[in-house]
Amino acid sequence: MSRISDPHFAERVRASFAKQHAMDLIHATLPVVEHGRTEIHLPHWSGVEQQHGFVHGGVVSMIADSAAGYAAMTMVPASASVLTVEYKMNLVAPADGDKLIARGKVVRPGKTLIVTQAEVFAVKDGEEKLCALMQQTIMVMHGKDEK
Amino acid sequence: MSRISDPHFAERVRASFAKQHAMDLIHATLPVVEHGRTEIHLPHWSGVEQQHGFVHGGVVSMIADSAAGYAAMTMVPASASVLTVEYKMNLVAPADGDKLIARGKVVRPGKTLIVTQAEVFAVKDGEEKLCALMQQTIMVMHGKDEK
Amino acid sequence: MSRISDPHFAERVRASFAKQHAMDLIHATLPVVEHGRTEIHLPHWSGVEQQHGFVHGGVVSMIADSAAGYAAMTMVPASASVLTVEYKMNLVAPADGDKLIARGKVVRPGKTLIVTQAEVFAVKDGEEKLCALMQQTIMVMHGKDEK
Amino acid sequence: MSRISDPHFAERVRASFAKQHAMDLIHATLPVVEHGRTEIHLPHWSGVEQQHGFVHGGVVSMIADSAAGYAAMTMVPASASVLTVEYKMNLVAPADGDKLIARGKVVRPGKTLIVTQAEVFAVKDGEEKLCALMQQTIMVMHGKDEK
Repeated sequence: MSRISDPHFAERVRASFAKQHAMDLIHATLPVVEHGRTEIHLPHWSGVEQQHGFVHGGVVSMIADSAAGYAAMTMVPASASVLTVEYKMNLVAPADGDKLIARGKVVRPGKTLIVTQAEVFAVKDGEEKLCALMQQTIMVMHGKDEK
Repeated sequence: MSRISDPHFAERVRASFAKQHAMDLIHATLPVVEHGRTEIHLPHWSGVEQQHGFVHGGVVSMIADSAAGYAAMTMVPASASVLTVEYKMNLVAPADGDKLIARGKVVRPGKTLIVTQAEVFAVKDGEEKLCALMQQTIMVMHGKDEK
Repeated sequence: MSRISDPHFAERVRASFAKQHAMDLIHATLPVVEHGRTEIHLPHWSGVEQQHGFVHGGVVSMIADSAAGYAAMTMVPASASVLTVEYKMNLVAPADGDKLIARGKVVRPGKTLIVTQAEVFAVKDGEEKLCALMQQTIMVMHGKDEK
Repeated sequence: MSRISDPHFAERVRASFAKQHAMDLIHATLPVVEHGRTEIHLPHWSGVEQQHGFVHGGVVSMIADSAAGYAAMTMVPASASVLTVEYKMNLVAPADGDKLIARGKVVRPGKTLIVTQAEVFAVKDGEEKLCALMQQTIMVMHGKDEK
């Protein structure tokens, strides 16, 4: 990938995640923060279900969007923040599992724009099944860190 | 648009919405259900915020996706259900308001696939400001109604 | 929309279009250039067909992408140029007609990013039928005009 | 991936490609057809250029769309054809090279819908540089082969 522009990227990303009430609302956690990639996990619980008892597609999107956005954030200077410009999401199977794992990664770092991808897997009886696939554009806001 | 294939579409759509725990979790309501269009409203409250105190982009997406999906559902036979195949979302401004309004509409009805759009507005001091724009593909599952 | 930042936008856009060999290759023309919107026309001829004798989806995309990109270009200062960051295209019907019309428009102007939409219609026996729908993100390159 | 449903997929795909006048118009070739993946190559020549002398983004999209669509076609029965429902394309760098290579692959095969991805690389002095990234939805038309 490219070189690390902030050695403390993981603390910065975790601090930002901790301030997102919406991630707390859905019971999402951020167990993995590496340079250019992150993982968000979500237990299956009744509050995030849609009408058939699967996890709601909108909740699947929330963790995909965040996992990929934070993957981008690991690659920007400490003095910058990131913003989701847009993303495209394919929901390829019902989110049917005990837990979901969203894996976000940077596929094309740039100075102003970063292109990322995320995959979301439903884990059932220890087996992962792909349920969503995302391609996303992130904008880097230089000189505007998250205070 | 096209003719109404189920005169009771509004009841059917409202019943489906009522079963979505995730919509309840974020405090979303569905005050408007018309043929080919719906509106979902969301009050701004702390549980749906991101790190800057605006409504989380993922929550914005949830109501856009649902408003457009339910707009599609108003146009299918009672014996069918709908599924989000994919969507593309541009987040054009922070969701900064007292409440959000997501307006979904069908732009191209088809037998198997329905193309929709949604706009999300943040309402502040009575004024609406566009914060998100979505284009979505919905699949019609014939013979598979939501029991 | 917003106010005009370059009174000579139409000349600037037409000059840029004239330099695109690829538009010439497919026989595309740009008969309409207004503030925030343009139209590209394409006759149906054998060179742009796919295997069923309709206009190739890729050619439909080319004129949609260009119509919307030039719509964005009408709204930037003379000292700036525009770049397609990304777009999403739904091909909703075969491009079956004597000619195609791509209509691009700006839906959300911004200083750095402009969000646009385009629709492509196939014209047959004088009647327009929607065949494609696009949502696009354009980046404004300030201080980098097209020499 | 999944098992081969038509042992003659490569002939079928090549025959379809040969009938696309638009691929001929831009000088595209299809040198690689494997189960679940294809490659389309395009020489850089003046007819496909945009105003700065790079390959036009629309032409980049054409070969990405086709490479991924044909990757999907390698996985359907001989009695079926495929249709592009929609795609999303990020143009991440100018298509600056002597030749372009579009690599399409199936990422999620399904009975009715197939999700694919494509990458386009510009080759300059023997080195490949990513210039575009696509995520696409393909529909399988069962019982409707390309005569």
